[in-house]
Amino acid sequence: MKKQAVKLEDVAAVAGVSKTTVSRVLNHRGYLSQATIDKVHQAMQELHYRPNVIARQLFQQKTNLIGLVFPTVDNPFFAQLEAQLDQELYRRGYRVLMGNSQNNPEREEAYLRQLLNGQVDGLIVGAHNEGIKQYRDTQLPVVSIERWVSKDIPVVAADNYAGGKMATQRLLDDGCQHIIHTNYPHGLPSPNLERRRAYEEMMQARHRPAITYEVNFDSTDEEKRAIFNRLFTEHPEVDGIFADNDTNASLIIQVARKRGRHIPHDLKVVGFDGANMTRTLLPELTTVQQPIDEMAKRAVDLLQQRIAGGQTTGSVQLPVQLIDGGTA
Amino acid sequence: MKKQAVKLEDVAAVAGVSKTTVSRVLNHRGYLSQATIDKVHQAMQELHYRPNVIARQLFQQKTNLIGLVFPTVDNPFFAQLEAQLDQELYRRGYRVLMGNSQNNPEREEAYLRQLLNGQVDGLIVGAHNEGIKQYRDTQLPVVSIERWVSKDIPVVAADNYAGGKMATQRLLDDGCQHIIHTNYPHGLPSPNLERRRAYEEMMQARHRPAITYEVNFDSTDEEKRAIFNRLFTEHPEVDGIFADNDTNASLIIQVARKRGRHIPHDLKVVGFDGANMTRTLLPELTTVQQPIDEMAKRAVDLLQQRIAGGQTTGSVQLPVQLIDGGTA
Repeated sequence: MKKQAVKLEDVAAVAGVSKTTVSRVLNHRGYLSQATIDKVHQAMQELHYRPNVIARQLFQQKTNLIGLVFPTVDNPFFAQLEAQLDQELYRRGYRVLMGNSQNNPEREEAYLRQLLNGQVDGLIVGAHNEGIKQYRDTQLPVVSIERWVSKDIPVVAADNYAGGKMATQRLLDDGCQHIIHTNYPHGLPSPNLERRRAYEEMMQARHRPAITYEVNFDSTDEEKRAIFNRLFTEHPEVDGIFADNDTNASLIIQVARKRGRHIPHDLKVVGFDGANMTRTLLPELTTVQQPIDEMAKRAVDLLQQRIAGGQTTGSVQLPVQLIDGGTA
Repeated sequence: MKKQAVKLEDVAAVAGVSKTTVSRVLNHRGYLSQATIDKVHQAMQELHYRPNVIARQLFQQKTNLIGLVFPTVDNPFFAQLEAQLDQELYRRGYRVLMGNSQNNPEREEAYLRQLLNGQVDGLIVGAHNEGIKQYRDTQLPVVSIERWVSKDIPVVAADNYAGGKMATQRLLDDGCQHIIHTNYPHGLPSPNLERRRAYEEMMQARHRPAITYEVNFDSTDEEKRAIFNRLFTEHPEVDGIFADNDTNASLIIQVARKRGRHIPHDLKVVGFDGANMTRTLLPELTTVQQPIDEMAKRAVDLLQQRIAGGQTTGSVQLPVQLIDGGTA
């Protein structure tokens, strides 16, 4: 329970302004000189005044909170994305409520029940769960990143199809004869599948088999290593791998080396994402880089338009680029 | 502006229960059978009922929100820590308000002004800024991770001193004659300095010079690479480096390789942290691993005790372990 001993009147008296002025400072309303704002803040600090934020929110009917619903922040792509979303939202006066779903549909639904109950002004979502019904029903402004949620919700994505073509083309240019791809299990509603489609189309156009190993995003590293070991056992001829993300690319390289393969001499690997942390920890990886910071900015732009009640311009697709490491 | 057309009465009528029962379900008060809870939830869903969460919070005088104030989530250590804190808090009915300070004291103060204004029930902090005054003045429950904030705020930390000894001992055991350390600039109030103290004491005991290169956490990779290049230029004799975190260790290895050094043949490197992402992307790094998940759990335990008004057991120090990669 909070003590609320100090009152608005006390702050007004110490600052030497009217109660109305203190209230306007608190609610960011009307024109106020910087000197007045400073005086009121100083008085609040001297008195340890804590305005009742909750009561103020009730009055304003907005929370200035935005919920982020993503699988986890413990991943190079999502860490950079959430850090950048937090920055962009902060600059515009919003704060971030985290909602990591851990790829658990029940947890995502539980978050949504809470968030849609008026706890946030809007949502930016990119969790991997299928068909969560609440998104279709809500009146709340929602923008998605790299996930197809419902036809009414705009998606900010990288040009995954072009990225898939770039990665496959690089392996073909390197002379690879037996190229294998990894991706999420088919059926997950993610623009990620465009990477797979690009790979498959290019293989088919060259009358080569298109082979995709399916890897769950939230499997443990051990489970993923087991899949990649199986890949090398079932396809010893493989000489090029297009991994759908850099974490998988890193694990593939580790497994291949343990099996005596030399990269890039007898196996070439291209990843996808090119996030900050991967560039720092694994700069030798050749990868298709997504414009993660720009994706964050565009998602916040779209959300802000939706919150303001304006028409949004629809989904956004941003260009990717191939980063030369040394693995392909 | 939100529509609030559907009322508590409507939910009660559809669920076939009293208004009081609906209110008890919403506020998690009193004994309720699962069947009753389910009926009420179903009715709420059918009617698209959005209880006024803000008004409810006003009544309860608590927000069930915990603020996390850390430098950034775009870093292997903080990504794992924040993901784990989010999990632990979620399990106990709390939600997380992100407050990444980007190592900017003004931003940290701005967050605190908001958070302390009744927006959260408690704070877990580990930002790197010095002496933020608000922490000393607040009545709000606060727990810190790996940061000395004020004498009243308990700290959860790894045993940094033991970790510093382990890392230095490993390099000495490897036969290194010229060991250099990297750490934050001296003066930052962080238990990180215990790593430096352990290194310096061990060097002095062996009558060897203790040389520490200071690296700001929030410098760019390019700035850090420049410092490490200077290190190798100024100390070509160096044959062992104890880096205060794995990101720096990775950059040191990259710079050393570019300069023709072979690791571990003529340069040995030990890092610090051993976070999930580093283990996935750079498993070959020998490092001192902090028990990050356990640190998150203990911090949440302490915070919960503080929120409940109980006496806390004071600061907590958890053991570390050396992980054998191949770089030392």
